[in-house]
Amino acid sequence: MGVVKRIAILGSTGSIGQQILDVVRALPDELRVVALTGNKNLKLLKRQIQEFQPKMVCSSVKPDVSHGAQFLSAEDIASHPEVDFVIVATVGKAGLSPTLAALRASKTVALADKEVLVMAGEIVVREASLHQSQILPIDSEHSAIWQCLQGEETKPHRLLLTASGGPFYRYSQAQLAEATPEQALQHPVWKMGRKITIDSATLMNKGLEVIEAHWLFSFPFDSIEILIHPQSIVHSMVEFADGSLKAQLSWPDMRLPIQYALSYPRRWPNPELSRLDWTKINSLTFEPVDYDRFPCLRLAVDAGKSGGTYPAVLCAADEVAVEFFLSHRIRFTDIAEIVQETLEQHRSVGAPSLEDILAADNWASEYATRISLGRCRKSEGRSRHRIQR
Amino acid sequence: MGVVKRIAILGSTGSIGQQILDVVRALPDELRVVALTGNKNLKLLKRQIQEFQPKMVCSSVKPDVSHGAQFLSAEDIASHPEVDFVIVATVGKAGLSPTLAALRASKTVALADKEVLVMAGEIVVREASLHQSQILPIDSEHSAIWQCLQGEETKPHRLLLTASGGPFYRYSQAQLAEATPEQALQHPVWKMGRKITIDSATLMNKGLEVIEAHWLFSFPFDSIEILIHPQSIVHSMVEFADGSLKAQLSWPDMRLPIQYALSYPRRWPNPELSRLDWTKINSLTFEPVDYDRFPCLRLAVDAGKSGGTYPAVLCAADEVAVEFFLSHRIRFTDIAEIVQETLEQHRSVGAPSLEDILAADNWASEYATRISLGRCRKSEGRSRHRIQR
Repeated sequence: MGVVKRIAILGSTGSIGQQILDVVRALPDELRVVALTGNKNLKLLKRQIQEFQPKMVCSSVKPDVSHGAQFLSAEDIASHPEVDFVIVATVGKAGLSPTLAALRASKTVALADKEVLVMAGEIVVREASLHQSQILPIDSEHSAIWQCLQGEETKPHRLLLTASGGPFYRYSQAQLAEATPEQALQHPVWKMGRKITIDSATLMNKGLEVIEAHWLFSFPFDSIEILIHPQSIVHSMVEFADGSLKAQLSWPDMRLPIQYALSYPRRWPNPELSRLDWTKINSLTFEPVDYDRFPCLRLAVDAGKSGGTYPAVLCAADEVAVEFFLSHRIRFTDIAEIVQETLEQHRSVGAPSLEDILAADNWASEYATRISLGRCRKSEGRSRHRIQR
Repeated sequence: MGVVKRIAILGSTGSIGQQILDVVRALPDELRVVALTGNKNLKLLKRQIQEFQPKMVCSSVKPDVSHGAQFLSAEDIASHPEVDFVIVATVGKAGLSPTLAALRASKTVALADKEVLVMAGEIVVREASLHQSQILPIDSEHSAIWQCLQGEETKPHRLLLTASGGPFYRYSQAQLAEATPEQALQHPVWKMGRKITIDSATLMNKGLEVIEAHWLFSFPFDSIEILIHPQSIVHSMVEFADGSLKAQLSWPDMRLPIQYALSYPRRWPNPELSRLDWTKINSLTFEPVDYDRFPCLRLAVDAGKSGGTYPAVLCAADEVAVEFFLSHRIRFTDIAEIVQETLEQHRSVGAPSLEDILAADNWASEYATRISLGRCRKSEGRSRHRIQR
């Protein structure tokens, strides 16, 4: 099966991180974990260290179990000579600096952290090209597009990103205003973290994926379309110059795109990954997305088109607003309004440096927090008003 | 756009031949017709000669319009030094000998004539390999599989051939016995010739495609599955070792697979080919095929597995039986019974030569005609019986 790949998993205790380790467990002859990094879940990180005995570890608190692992920074791990393959499965801007370190050391980097490309796509793509390092997608949608592009010599005409639509896709505007975090967290298809589940309900997540697709495949925004596909079997499609389309299909299971990034350009059998059973699939449906009821989608695509520090501001404001929604302090429909207001107030920097991006992120977090707090009071007022009636 | 491809179209007056010329019309900078061959439809051949002014022509009767074209045999055309690309769009065994001539002259051959690979797959594949010539598929299903295989390094796990199911797929056994040629000729999706339309209704056509897929992709029969997909949007799929599937989609339009074979490995824009409109597609459905009601399918797959001269006998017996059905002399359900009886009575030759194949074809035609005539009388008897009641 070829040489064993030595992989570093940044963010191994998160939802994606744990699924990466599932894939490694199933493929002991192909993959070896040489580094793990975690953040808050120290208990799980310790169990992972015990099981995989990595050579290098990074975490905010040094765990008492180490099995002789060296403690290094995430950047040092990402660029270490004993690492062949870096998987960035962190959340948010934490992945930025180690990704750049890995690319500068000419590593192959598989990205599961959306914000890395959304916030700093221009810088990341430039560094990859300068150092001839490869960026591979792990998101199911981008993996699907990447699989469909294999062997094609002519630039495709259109990318069709599919979206389940999330838990609220059939809600009216009035129902959306009253939607609760508990309702959103019952996501119909994918098991994911809390933040990404809310992003999935607002379709912000799909908007971030459009920006990612733009950078990963150097594809213009106007040629990236979104199709609502509630069954989540077709993970995305590519339309070619002659009108032919290719689609990639499977049960929704993150372990498949994770494994494809690791096995590429080959494919490995893995009995843990279940095959599509056509007797269990009634029908596959597709419909154009409704931008009006889900304004986050348009905000994201517009931020992507505008470039500069807008996408970083988008991510930061969304993170704040989602946190306020999760703690029941603002309404579901407030999320888009907070993000929009923050974007409108932002003064973007063109061709930003990493420092510019982090400064914009910082500014947006503070600004969005301030206006979210303002809305808390208003929401409370509205609630009182309703009760009085 | 690169060098102009000089193409020879064998069978230019048939349904596929005419669609090939449509593609040529749309792409005058990429394609040039240097040879045309026709058979019965002399009037149309003359019009085609007038329009495309080929250097070479072959037909059973010499047309009075030639525009200086040379009259040659189909074999001489297929192997001519001024031909880069041979498209075999003949029907039945007529394509066999020119296909072999083209392969021996190291031409690229695009096959639209199913019987060539079904009857003589072993010989055709061997000659292609000996002379390093390429065989490209033109059937929409095989083109779909071929497109999905591009860039894949690992042998796939399964091929999933889709089938519309034809006009009778929801018929009961009793309804099938009474089905008429007129009902069959109203094929729901594809515009095709009469013979292939009946083969589509019996699913014999799908069985022949399984045999073709076996030879084109050197794939074992047991790893080729059939899925009923009435919408004919997904033209086939490939399942890989990791459980991922790729599908190729488009409106049903033969011009697309024709053009892909011509443009391969690139793709050409062609405004004549309409793009999928997702607002017009309600849903895509898939279900396992019912072998019991459509015995021709099993007969074909079994003949393919048995090899030797069985597939040639299958084709010849089917051709005869379909002709009897089209002229209302036997029932729809008689077709499978005639093919089965002919196969059962055949003594197959292992590793057959072209002569063995043609002898088997000859024997089967005669045998199937004899038993079809026997059934005519029985059917008439049945009809009288019904009228008397």
